[in-house]
Amino acid sequence: MNAAASGTLAVPAPALVAFAVATLEGCGLPPPDAARTAGLIVEADLFGIDTHGVFRLPAYVKRLRDGGINTTPSIGILRDRPAAALVDGDNGMGHLVMARAAEIGIAKAKATGAAWIGVRMSNHAGPAALYARMALPHDMIGLYMAMGNANHMPPHGGAEGLLCTNPLAVAVPAGAEPPVVLDMATTTVAFGKVKAAAERGETLPEGWMVDHDGSPLTDAVRAMREGGLLLPFGGYKGYALSLIISLLAGTLNAAPVGRDIVDWYKDETTPTNTGQALLFIDIGSFCDVAVFKRQVDAFVRDIRGSRRAPGVERIWLPGEQSHDRRRTREREGIPLPAALIAKLDATAASVGRPPIAAYQESAA
Amino acid sequence: MNAAASGTLAVPAPALVAFAVATLEGCGLPPPDAARTAGLIVEADLFGIDTHGVFRLPAYVKRLRDGGINTTPSIGILRDRPAAALVDGDNGMGHLVMARAAEIGIAKAKATGAAWIGVRMSNHAGPAALYARMALPHDMIGLYMAMGNANHMPPHGGAEGLLCTNPLAVAVPAGAEPPVVLDMATTTVAFGKVKAAAERGETLPEGWMVDHDGSPLTDAVRAMREGGLLLPFGGYKGYALSLIISLLAGTLNAAPVGRDIVDWYKDETTPTNTGQALLFIDIGSFCDVAVFKRQVDAFVRDIRGSRRAPGVERIWLPGEQSHDRRRTREREGIPLPAALIAKLDATAASVGRPPIAAYQESAA
Repeated sequence: MNAAASGTLAVPAPALVAFAVATLEGCGLPPPDAARTAGLIVEADLFGIDTHGVFRLPAYVKRLRDGGINTTPSIGILRDRPAAALVDGDNGMGHLVMARAAEIGIAKAKATGAAWIGVRMSNHAGPAALYARMALPHDMIGLYMAMGNANHMPPHGGAEGLLCTNPLAVAVPAGAEPPVVLDMATTTVAFGKVKAAAERGETLPEGWMVDHDGSPLTDAVRAMREGGLLLPFGGYKGYALSLIISLLAGTLNAAPVGRDIVDWYKDETTPTNTGQALLFIDIGSFCDVAVFKRQVDAFVRDIRGSRRAPGVERIWLPGEQSHDRRRTREREGIPLPAALIAKLDATAASVGRPPIAAYQESAA
Repeated sequence: MNAAASGTLAVPAPALVAFAVATLEGCGLPPPDAARTAGLIVEADLFGIDTHGVFRLPAYVKRLRDGGINTTPSIGILRDRPAAALVDGDNGMGHLVMARAAEIGIAKAKATGAAWIGVRMSNHAGPAALYARMALPHDMIGLYMAMGNANHMPPHGGAEGLLCTNPLAVAVPAGAEPPVVLDMATTTVAFGKVKAAAERGETLPEGWMVDHDGSPLTDAVRAMREGGLLLPFGGYKGYALSLIISLLAGTLNAAPVGRDIVDWYKDETTPTNTGQALLFIDIGSFCDVAVFKRQVDAFVRDIRGSRRAPGVERIWLPGEQSHDRRRTREREGIPLPAALIAKLDATAASVGRPPIAAYQESAA
């Protein structure tokens, strides 16, 4: 294992996948399901989305062991139209449910030009971009939106949590350039950033949170203790976007929204019935795919090379930094803090599986 | 005509429609096309979107007369799939093109569950919400996105206009409550608000605009004179959203983006080839429509009745204020400033048609 500065260890992705597969099998997931789930979890780490990868494995394992997630779900189609489907996840791991939903959506979009897939009885599925990106190898544009698992956000002008961070991701293929991938929560920041600030003892910038009276909250530790509310990004526009995602990913799929949300952090056994949605658009149904990709490349380069504001070193395209990070991490391994490794090892031990080091050594 | 305070006159919607129909016919639009276009233009005024209704008629008329918009377009389908189509607007009035595209999309979504319609060779079509709302009588959810007609916005960190205000609208039907309708530009504010501030001699809040060096610009008159840049809402998130809309509404439909945009304000004869896109989702393909509407009502009421932040009198739902304004204006008429009426009358006279008062009197 390569020791890096400040107690961080770089673990090769294949070793981390093997570790996660074994741990999930230890929870009772059938081997193919464990492999698919573990691959997607580590994909998040490869892209540098550290708050949504193996960092979440202990919570998943706890929920799997406590019966809060079904280890052997029967994922099926409840309603089926040529360009639409409602998928029932049977309370399985969100990653598995969404990977299956994406397969269904891509097949439909290939047949009809575009398809909208609603999902119910799913669970937290890691970063939104993973599922939008599934469109890319098929020369499609992918869009994913999801209900969060806790009411972290008030309506615009409100002081009561009735909306989740409700992420939205869109992935658009390019040619020689990295794909353009938007992946954002509808809050100014995700709750993970507040957690991270609290752990580092930092103060929160104003505009991130309010307390339950609706007053600004900048004390990260107090925010974690009292459960402050995250503000929508862009004021009423972020609020409206989050509400629309609630209706499209939640209500349309008979999944809970608002006061009916099952808080993932407070209730570890009731099925969350998480609602999600996917859209796939087949590029070849609208234009020549090669021409499209050349045009995306050209626009990306115009933006990257355009005049910069004072003090700005580089103009980034959405998804470009994740793309770069993935290349680095495939080569150099995924940097994990020693404290996280200890927690992951303890999680594996709780289901009778070996620590990360075991896979690291056998891979070396 | 009812004279109101400060030189504003309330004109009944039917009179304003009749006036706009005659004026558009005066430009050479066939009577059914003039009627459809005028109806949609005044619809914007009824909803209170004053910057996108008859306020724009003089610019439309100028472009129609100068040959910049085709008065007798042959709107057709270039590519046709069961759940997707590329519509060519043949450089017709944007309202006509989008109304036709919406018909195509709604028919496809009825047949397949969902449909994505791309549009090219279109023009400015008024407020985004109009076309998303076309889903509502069909128990569908509608989504509309459009390329703007001028590069008003820099990338995040940039100082060069390469993105338009690129609006997004989504409309979701409710039961007894007004539909939930998001309608937003991806800039902090639309350019119309800067124009209005300049006319009133007001200063712009920081965060609305930067100058061409990327420095904050708060002088509205200077902004109008030098063409300052509008900032994206929510920083890099608004930037990413605007870029995605450029790719989906523009590039996918072989419509221009970035440096290829034809600036509507500077070039009045070159076809803009405006790109737009529509998505329709058939609610009954996912759940029982009546149950869905009851759930939307319940969520809307929970939000409206939730705890408010200090000093907030009411929590609004997206689209609720437009809905209320429409009811008022249907009853009391559309308030038009005297200066706008004079401009509209001069526009009508330029194509040999009578002033607004003529229709007002015959309606009385």
